[in-house]
Amino acid sequence: MDMQGILDEIVERVATLCHQGSVAAYIPSLSQVSPEKFGICVAMADGTVYGAGDWRTPFSIQSLSKVFSLALVMSYDYDSIWRRVFREPSGTPFNSMVQLEADRGIPRNPFINAGALVVTDRLLTLTGDAAGSVRGLLRRESGNPEVEVDEVVAASEAGHGHRNASMAHLLASYGNLENPVDDVLANYFNQCALEMSCEDLAKASLFLARHGVSTGGTPFLSPNQSKRVNAVMLTCGTYDAAGEFAYRVGLPGKSGVGGGIVAIVPGRCSVTVWGPALGPNGNSVAGIAALDAFTARTEWSIF
Amino acid sequence: MDMQGILDEIVERVATLCHQGSVAAYIPSLSQVSPEKFGICVAMADGTVYGAGDWRTPFSIQSLSKVFSLALVMSYDYDSIWRRVFREPSGTPFNSMVQLEADRGIPRNPFINAGALVVTDRLLTLTGDAAGSVRGLLRRESGNPEVEVDEVVAASEAGHGHRNASMAHLLASYGNLENPVDDVLANYFNQCALEMSCEDLAKASLFLARHGVSTGGTPFLSPNQSKRVNAVMLTCGTYDAAGEFAYRVGLPGKSGVGGGIVAIVPGRCSVTVWGPALGPNGNSVAGIAALDAFTARTEWSIF
Amino acid sequence: MDMQGILDEIVERVATLCHQGSVAAYIPSLSQVSPEKFGICVAMADGTVYGAGDWRTPFSIQSLSKVFSLALVMSYDYDSIWRRVFREPSGTPFNSMVQLEADRGIPRNPFINAGALVVTDRLLTLTGDAAGSVRGLLRRESGNPEVEVDEVVAASEAGHGHRNASMAHLLASYGNLENPVDDVLANYFNQCALEMSCEDLAKASLFLARHGVSTGGTPFLSPNQSKRVNAVMLTCGTYDAAGEFAYRVGLPGKSGVGGGIVAIVPGRCSVTVWGPALGPNGNSVAGIAALDAFTARTEWSIF
Amino acid sequence: MDMQGILDEIVERVATLCHQGSVAAYIPSLSQVSPEKFGICVAMADGTVYGAGDWRTPFSIQSLSKVFSLALVMSYDYDSIWRRVFREPSGTPFNSMVQLEADRGIPRNPFINAGALVVTDRLLTLTGDAAGSVRGLLRRESGNPEVEVDEVVAASEAGHGHRNASMAHLLASYGNLENPVDDVLANYFNQCALEMSCEDLAKASLFLARHGVSTGGTPFLSPNQSKRVNAVMLTCGTYDAAGEFAYRVGLPGKSGVGGGIVAIVPGRCSVTVWGPALGPNGNSVAGIAALDAFTARTEWSIF
Repeated sequence: MDMQGILDEIVERVATLCHQGSVAAYIPSLSQVSPEKFGICVAMADGTVYGAGDWRTPFSIQSLSKVFSLALVMSYDYDSIWRRVFREPSGTPFNSMVQLEADRGIPRNPFINAGALVVTDRLLTLTGDAAGSVRGLLRRESGNPEVEVDEVVAASEAGHGHRNASMAHLLASYGNLENPVDDVLANYFNQCALEMSCEDLAKASLFLARHGVSTGGTPFLSPNQSKRVNAVMLTCGTYDAAGEFAYRVGLPGKSGVGGGIVAIVPGRCSVTVWGPALGPNGNSVAGIAALDAFTARTEWSIF
Repeated sequence: MDMQGILDEIVERVATLCHQGSVAAYIPSLSQVSPEKFGICVAMADGTVYGAGDWRTPFSIQSLSKVFSLALVMSYDYDSIWRRVFREPSGTPFNSMVQLEADRGIPRNPFINAGALVVTDRLLTLTGDAAGSVRGLLRRESGNPEVEVDEVVAASEAGHGHRNASMAHLLASYGNLENPVDDVLANYFNQCALEMSCEDLAKASLFLARHGVSTGGTPFLSPNQSKRVNAVMLTCGTYDAAGEFAYRVGLPGKSGVGGGIVAIVPGRCSVTVWGPALGPNGNSVAGIAALDAFTARTEWSIF
Repeated sequence: MDMQGILDEIVERVATLCHQGSVAAYIPSLSQVSPEKFGICVAMADGTVYGAGDWRTPFSIQSLSKVFSLALVMSYDYDSIWRRVFREPSGTPFNSMVQLEADRGIPRNPFINAGALVVTDRLLTLTGDAAGSVRGLLRRESGNPEVEVDEVVAASEAGHGHRNASMAHLLASYGNLENPVDDVLANYFNQCALEMSCEDLAKASLFLARHGVSTGGTPFLSPNQSKRVNAVMLTCGTYDAAGEFAYRVGLPGKSGVGGGIVAIVPGRCSVTVWGPALGPNGNSVAGIAALDAFTARTEWSIF
Repeated sequence: MDMQGILDEIVERVATLCHQGSVAAYIPSLSQVSPEKFGICVAMADGTVYGAGDWRTPFSIQSLSKVFSLALVMSYDYDSIWRRVFREPSGTPFNSMVQLEADRGIPRNPFINAGALVVTDRLLTLTGDAAGSVRGLLRRESGNPEVEVDEVVAASEAGHGHRNASMAHLLASYGNLENPVDDVLANYFNQCALEMSCEDLAKASLFLARHGVSTGGTPFLSPNQSKRVNAVMLTCGTYDAAGEFAYRVGLPGKSGVGGGIVAIVPGRCSVTVWGPALGPNGNSVAGIAALDAFTARTEWSIF
């Protein structure tokens, strides 16, 4: 299989799709990114890496960080997080508070904002520095010691963070936070404001394609844990378009409002795409089209 | 791999779990089934069949019929059904009308009752006899010409069918039914009241493990269509426990209130389990435990 | 007080408001009414009647009938209806099914469609002919023996009645109907399709301004029952604009999609207005403005 | 009419009802109040005051303060508050966030917590000291210069205020707060923690029975504004039991979790009751029974 050829072809095909979406505008620093950027990177299980387009340009990982904070919590504390967060698709827009209230403070899954706040809170208790732990994991797995928080983005998130603050206080009112609201929010905003390239992210998520084995060769998660993170990504990873993503792409995947998507072909490879223009559900328009083309060409859908 | 040994062991392990659930009680004919029944059958892609427990005892397939009516509609009419039904997890109990109203008559997916009514309506338009078409497909694929509607169950469903009638009228009020409400309901109740064994069902669903190729060797669905039915099963097949099912079992699956579950290992086999005692989400307690054990032993999770 | 002068002035003032709304279009027979019609009638507690504009033109009373069916049920059977329907404002659009499902088949109040179906069902049990009883009451109190069902409207309602059928089946699924769905619907459609003028309606509702005493001088309701029907009208009579109506008009009132509104000044008079063009909440635009002007001029708000 | 006799009789009748409810327990300082307290006070339009039971014992006014902050905002700024808050019954429990999200940050009415936060925010902008303005109004109208905030209660509210903080941040995320979240919350907690007796409250709310004329004889609100505050009290004043309150009592009223209820007989008098044990909707059990008996005896229902 000519992987490089496939990626080059995909970059060409999705070039114009950026005009069908719009860049996240809720904070100024994200809204200034050019919608025409597009990158794709594939990291094979054996460590070989292929890339095309803007695959080495760093961008704001945003919700992609939620995969890594969940993996970290599971690595410390296998299964206890599931007493504080469900693992069901939300069926409602990603930051809805309706569900949280109906379910008395237990978020539907760890990839909606409310659930990610609970995971960050747990990680903060376990490590004393949730955002630092996520950054440490990402540096180690990507092999890039320069992975860093974009302080402008982090400050901007905090300045526009009333909705996340509202959610955190609601969690606290149900007794589902262990740490002070402000500490949880600061860690959450920092982990979302990490900057990484497609290359960094494909390497950093490779352990999910290698049954939990880290790039250094040691087990980070057990095979069972790795499978389960993938299962949660498939059912809950792309906001309220999880069914659509499974239908079109057929891989576990997690998207972020920075325009990145991480997808996993278990046993084979991880794939990261980046295109800042988002569709109505908050997922990268070019990114989803690229992953659709990727599974069509490789026939590597899990279904 | 000693498949027969695995199945025998599973039957032994799940024997007592039936006491953790309760048999569907909304119609008398279902409530009389013994909760202690349990069967499992695996049909390999090459046609080999393994079974254990009550794997040859017929039971009411109920919502399992929804997989086959959807496959039939897609076989006639590739993609147009998706203008009338979404393919997203519902996030709410399986027969909720809330979502249907909020979405102005477009059901969340083809496996909740409202969505299945739309699929049945479409199949009725395409074939003139929706329940007959489903029965025909099931007879052909299972090789069992005696697959038949249990008339007592069908009459019982119709007699207790106010909720489905309510849903059908609501769909009609949004212009999302092509046929008279009573005709759609009659076909729907009949297809749900078909009786089949685990063996029949494993054979009948084998095409989903063979990229769309029927037991007779001819293509019934395209590989792409087959993958997509599996994707919808994974995200929407087990009511509002789809995330939990993906997490524990890791296979596309569809459950029914008769206690049956059909699961697919793409490229390898189909698996059918049957245990009439249901848990709080309407899925067979013993059935889910059996599939959990099955993927743990075989390591055939798709993740 | 020059009541005739007040009414003439109101007719003049609201003449142009009809262009701010639109005539109900869900059934053809209603949509053909001229939006420029407007009538107002006041019936004083002593029997004196004042009218202006099209106050003697009959129109479709629609939901105004719900006041009379409720009064009839209470006259037979004081308080038992409240076990089957609440008396709280709905807070949601008038035909929503969400609430009905959340409240397990108990409608929020007798003036939303679901609640009115329950009242009609009860009246059917009590009298054997719910629509006939309502017609009888309206003929007797208005003194007009020609009050009659518009058969074209009734047939039209039945032909476009999927939503009401859906609601009736949902009530039945919760065990909250005593009679067959089709019988309840037929009675409901007939009582809604009665035709009356402002004059007829002002006379017919006068008992609510006379502490329950009918036009013939005999008690129809007790003073307590009469007050309570008025209380339910105030909190629930104008769909999800009850707060707005209380704020602007300050009287108990009930509106219908035919453009009529009945309002009560306890101890003094009943007022009926009619203007077919409806605002976004389904209430007559000119009618609400007229009642607003009426209470401003007379200072007869209950607050 | 022997008003004193009526009040004495009511105190006797409701004495035992306190055992049918329970004292608010969400903050320690409220939970320590004896459930057996009961007081009632009537202030006639001419200034005569009648009282019985614990009518001179101060208690925490809690949500009763919302009537006075709304009246103050209307006195400064007639109608502009209604661009930021609706005046419809909520139809859901009093502190629900569902509605607020569905309505994009516009609370249903000024008497649910979210709406009261918006009113307090507006009053803070208008006066620079919202809680101080409310206290000033209450001192002036009650003639009691010792009306004061209970600092222990205020601190306790703040310490258990995650839910109100969540709501305030959600309002801010929709741009519906003019002042910093912490300032709005501090003012809100202080106004709720004011302590007053039934006597103080009956005098302080008398302007609503006197068409807006203050106890000093000068107009505080216009007659129109006064009527409108009463209308909002009737439709929205008793959480999601407004329909029930109108049905049983038939007066505009506002309740608080401290067990107080203020009710108005327009043109005649104001009535305040206090009984700390609350029913399931958060209204004083003995208080509602007392008002029910009061309107039955006096026949002063507005209906």
